[in-house]
Amino acid sequence: MIKAGIIGATGYAGGELVRILTGHKEVEIVWYGSRSYIDQNYADVYRNMFEIVDAKCLDDNMEELAKKVDVIFTATPQGFCASMLSEEILSQTKIIDLSADYRIKDVSTYEKWYKIKHNSPQFIEEAVYGLCEINREDVKNARLVANPGCYTTCSILTAYPLAKEGLIDMNTLIIDAKSGTSGAGRGTKLPNLFCEVNENMKAYGVAEHRHTPEIEEQLGYASNEKVYINFTPHLVPMNRGILATEYASLKKDVTYEEVKAIYDKYYKEEKFVRVLPEGVYPETKWVEGSNYVDINFKIDPRTNRVIMMGAIDNLVKGAAGQAVQNMNLMFGLKESEGLELVPMFP
Amino acid sequence: MIKAGIIGATGYAGGELVRILTGHKEVEIVWYGSRSYIDQNYADVYRNMFEIVDAKCLDDNMEELAKKVDVIFTATPQGFCASMLSEEILSQTKIIDLSADYRIKDVSTYEKWYKIKHNSPQFIEEAVYGLCEINREDVKNARLVANPGCYTTCSILTAYPLAKEGLIDMNTLIIDAKSGTSGAGRGTKLPNLFCEVNENMKAYGVAEHRHTPEIEEQLGYASNEKVYINFTPHLVPMNRGILATEYASLKKDVTYEEVKAIYDKYYKEEKFVRVLPEGVYPETKWVEGSNYVDINFKIDPRTNRVIMMGAIDNLVKGAAGQAVQNMNLMFGLKESEGLELVPMFP
Amino acid sequence: MIKAGIIGATGYAGGELVRILTGHKEVEIVWYGSRSYIDQNYADVYRNMFEIVDAKCLDDNMEELAKKVDVIFTATPQGFCASMLSEEILSQTKIIDLSADYRIKDVSTYEKWYKIKHNSPQFIEEAVYGLCEINREDVKNARLVANPGCYTTCSILTAYPLAKEGLIDMNTLIIDAKSGTSGAGRGTKLPNLFCEVNENMKAYGVAEHRHTPEIEEQLGYASNEKVYINFTPHLVPMNRGILATEYASLKKDVTYEEVKAIYDKYYKEEKFVRVLPEGVYPETKWVEGSNYVDINFKIDPRTNRVIMMGAIDNLVKGAAGQAVQNMNLMFGLKESEGLELVPMFP
Amino acid sequence: MIKAGIIGATGYAGGELVRILTGHKEVEIVWYGSRSYIDQNYADVYRNMFEIVDAKCLDDNMEELAKKVDVIFTATPQGFCASMLSEEILSQTKIIDLSADYRIKDVSTYEKWYKIKHNSPQFIEEAVYGLCEINREDVKNARLVANPGCYTTCSILTAYPLAKEGLIDMNTLIIDAKSGTSGAGRGTKLPNLFCEVNENMKAYGVAEHRHTPEIEEQLGYASNEKVYINFTPHLVPMNRGILATEYASLKKDVTYEEVKAIYDKYYKEEKFVRVLPEGVYPETKWVEGSNYVDINFKIDPRTNRVIMMGAIDNLVKGAAGQAVQNMNLMFGLKESEGLELVPMFP
Repeated sequence: MIKAGIIGATGYAGGELVRILTGHKEVEIVWYGSRSYIDQNYADVYRNMFEIVDAKCLDDNMEELAKKVDVIFTATPQGFCASMLSEEILSQTKIIDLSADYRIKDVSTYEKWYKIKHNSPQFIEEAVYGLCEINREDVKNARLVANPGCYTTCSILTAYPLAKEGLIDMNTLIIDAKSGTSGAGRGTKLPNLFCEVNENMKAYGVAEHRHTPEIEEQLGYASNEKVYINFTPHLVPMNRGILATEYASLKKDVTYEEVKAIYDKYYKEEKFVRVLPEGVYPETKWVEGSNYVDINFKIDPRTNRVIMMGAIDNLVKGAAGQAVQNMNLMFGLKESEGLELVPMFP
Repeated sequence: MIKAGIIGATGYAGGELVRILTGHKEVEIVWYGSRSYIDQNYADVYRNMFEIVDAKCLDDNMEELAKKVDVIFTATPQGFCASMLSEEILSQTKIIDLSADYRIKDVSTYEKWYKIKHNSPQFIEEAVYGLCEINREDVKNARLVANPGCYTTCSILTAYPLAKEGLIDMNTLIIDAKSGTSGAGRGTKLPNLFCEVNENMKAYGVAEHRHTPEIEEQLGYASNEKVYINFTPHLVPMNRGILATEYASLKKDVTYEEVKAIYDKYYKEEKFVRVLPEGVYPETKWVEGSNYVDINFKIDPRTNRVIMMGAIDNLVKGAAGQAVQNMNLMFGLKESEGLELVPMFP
Repeated sequence: MIKAGIIGATGYAGGELVRILTGHKEVEIVWYGSRSYIDQNYADVYRNMFEIVDAKCLDDNMEELAKKVDVIFTATPQGFCASMLSEEILSQTKIIDLSADYRIKDVSTYEKWYKIKHNSPQFIEEAVYGLCEINREDVKNARLVANPGCYTTCSILTAYPLAKEGLIDMNTLIIDAKSGTSGAGRGTKLPNLFCEVNENMKAYGVAEHRHTPEIEEQLGYASNEKVYINFTPHLVPMNRGILATEYASLKKDVTYEEVKAIYDKYYKEEKFVRVLPEGVYPETKWVEGSNYVDINFKIDPRTNRVIMMGAIDNLVKGAAGQAVQNMNLMFGLKESEGLELVPMFP
Repeated sequence: MIKAGIIGATGYAGGELVRILTGHKEVEIVWYGSRSYIDQNYADVYRNMFEIVDAKCLDDNMEELAKKVDVIFTATPQGFCASMLSEEILSQTKIIDLSADYRIKDVSTYEKWYKIKHNSPQFIEEAVYGLCEINREDVKNARLVANPGCYTTCSILTAYPLAKEGLIDMNTLIIDAKSGTSGAGRGTKLPNLFCEVNENMKAYGVAEHRHTPEIEEQLGYASNEKVYINFTPHLVPMNRGILATEYASLKKDVTYEEVKAIYDKYYKEEKFVRVLPEGVYPETKWVEGSNYVDINFKIDPRTNRVIMMGAIDNLVKGAAGQAVQNMNLMFGLKESEGLELVPMFP
């Protein structure tokens, strides 16, 4: 059995990791780290885990933890993992960091968008960006995986094949994304209150959201050029789910079949990416609770643009599920182990 | 592999059966019956099943189906199963009926509350009421199981130990139940529209709801007396979940510990019943997507009543999950096979 | 123009007072008190008020305020008004207290249920319980009105006629109430987060909720006996609305027409109480945004009980609307002035 | 008193017209037309109107109605008004058509996008597009007003000043719009069921939605060029509200202040358009129940685009409120009469 430790086990992404790993045949969680709930029963923090998890929350001592486990998941605020990581830790255990600390290769970009200093830039180069469908082989050999963000996973995978194949003008790319409220975390802030979110919708972080450079960097690798996009996140009154609607100008005349063939080229063999039938557009509910990404597109000959749409469960493929997918790759397990989660409807 | 057929596979309960059986190691669904969607791809009706279920919807011919499968689930409107069932069918396959047709032993009570004629009363006696925690041994040997209703499962299990032990005055029992909207089915009726349900709450079927006699009958067996209760269902703006709040006068002075001991006597060994810690009351979200029943109680010395509370996912323990639990018992499988579903939160 | 001051103008009830008074022809709000937002624009706290309210939040100095206004609304936590009130203040201005400080005549009952010391018990006797439909004449002459709670308004008015006429056995009364989340206030607490409330339902304060003695006292006056009830509040995933389902044993055989006649006796002339047609049960959506109480009942001959149901908008008839109704009475205005709010649907 | 008739009074937009006109001092509704509910009490269809509206639903005979009323509102499916309208009717009464029949000047465009034949093209020329903020003077003299659609009202007003002033490259305009479910109407269709919409989000009508040519036409008038846009509507799990997020490339370098000045030029004197403070982005909840349009923008120097955002209540400014605003103009009343609706929060 692989021994796993979770730092930040009582946030929503941490909770989802626990839910998924509880059903994973090859893993045992031995450390439920939570700075806020030390010594409390984990099942008192998340009552859904009553009689399922019988463990207390522990502190977030990464050095101590590294000695005890085969893999550490850090589902922590930005800056935490970068402050704690050391060569000694990395030599003892594998790290899957669900924060943004190692996602962006250029430190100054990270520091500019996140407005914090990076405390261990020496590991950035080594870190593998854990978008399994794109970096599968690198993930297999990684000690340190930077698990992609929720918006970014959805945004990148939706546009990736067309970016990679040079079909779209990258600097026309506009991503209008909509997220359920669990993406905002479990912090007790006014804008997250039920009565503020329910029956409401808004954009936020317009032209300034931190996931922007991450998307730009990855799609830049795909298209082999410097990419600047508009990315606008919106808050939606639902718990889970991200829907990304993406617009780009086509660089040449293409038919539905040609574009479909490109998507199939990249995703036909991918278990967790489903390119929907023509005319059927993704709905977040169809992927809820699962690790799927549902994708489709529509060509608009009137404007010569392609509209691409993708949907994920932000806590699964957008966080915990992808982290487990990465772990499976890193440990040579079946990639879908523990992730055969059938979407729940309704 | 057990071969299973589902009649009514495109209703919400049918869809949930598909979700659960898809993850069940010992079962293969070979028949997706749906009168409304014959010859359509099942995954076109429920897109969450895209690339998971590759089958077309078939008609609801029970006679033909009986020859092909080991078990038939009927997730159909009241009256369907009673109209179709025959000794020949029962001699060929096992039947788990998710409708009310065989739940009530007294035909006239059934006909009065459901306002339809019962077309095969000869099987009522044989049918086992499939509340596994209560009738486990009988279920194991049954050919025909009457799978309990969602409100009833929750209502009965919440009060059962105190009814059985004679602790409460049965004719003071009042059950105020609240249900998510999936309980109303997938029919396209005005009261089920999003804008009619959302931001709204109401009681319905007051003093007349069809689940009343089912609860009365079962709690009557438990308490060994004729029971008349008030049962009031309410519609809540959420997809899943039933919460039952039950009130009854205590027949004698009891302490928390004494009542807790009674609940433990019946449920301590039950995997799917969780009696919560003192002062923690059930929330439907804690059982969502799972087969659990969460229960607790509070004694009010001011009124000499006990308030009992229970929560289930109406589509799982209240329908499909319980049906699978019954199937496991009927086929000698591990009772929890395919039902190790961790509740999803949030 | 009547000059009004609001202390606690940035809570949900305070915000609703502002919404209603903004449309009131005879009132001008001159003081938006808010300890948390002093010197901030009110419209920066509630953006819906942008270009409607042009004023800054002020502190909560009741003594200073009393000199400037004709009426003070205190929409503040329990204990605040009792700590601040003085004969001098009461001699200068009228007070409508939306907290519980003066609702309960017996100080020890207040202190026991609210677990705080009452700092000005000398005004309790004088305070009028501002349930306009019941205490209309007293309210007209009051200096100090204790504005009823949201659960209590709904619970009392629903049962009042039958209690008053001696039709029901008061000690069998059980009130199962369901509330939208705005009733929990705007405090940034974990249980109020969107993801904790949405798709969820729970009971809370079981057998211990503070509104219990208030309901018991008022229904005790009506029935002329000491009353002990069970009152169970539930949290529902909607912003606004309270639905109370109430159960009581009938003391004699009555017909629908007889009970209807009793309700009509008390409510036929009441503008804000609507007794619905036979068989139509209240829905919270039908009163949303308005000052109405919708009521109906059902006799169950099987159990000899009557089930009474009432619905209000907790922020209007359950708080701000009722406060304005009280103000209208106190100042000799038309009782419905500013309250001709048509319920919004959907 | 102006006598008004409503054809289609039992749809959501019709219901909202009733709500608003009920509070309008100069209007009396004398005809509640509803093909589906003829002879039923209006308050039995919309219970929120119990004891407020005391009238029966009548048929939709426009000829008869024209003789009795000063103004007819048609809140009917596309094609109805075009089929019924005649010179005789127009000579007797004013018409405010909430459908799309007279919104688009080019008949072939209408017939292509709506896929129905236009039965009275002779009135299209005369019809005034009733976006009051833009066509105020024409509306005042109109016999026939084409009341704009919900998506279009929001989309157009949000971009109008920048289109009019030539600040943006019109053919880069992309409108990503999100709507509450009341926009889908009260029809009993599967996709409108609570369980299908709740906890879900999707795009629909991608590159094909009927509101597209209406937006293009109006913004074409503003910018004085032929305009082709991408418009993508999305369904959001809330009852009311539209949020439009719009992207366009800037034609020259501009500062925040310059763009703000342009918005102010057009909207500073507009009662119902609120340009929010810098950095504050529209939320649908801030306009709920009111006739406001809330607008703001953000310049992104990285991409040289401006992101414009607008929010309305789809049933008010997007339908019934705007219709009343048009009526006020047509009858020489104060433009805001009956529309001083304070947004409800939460």
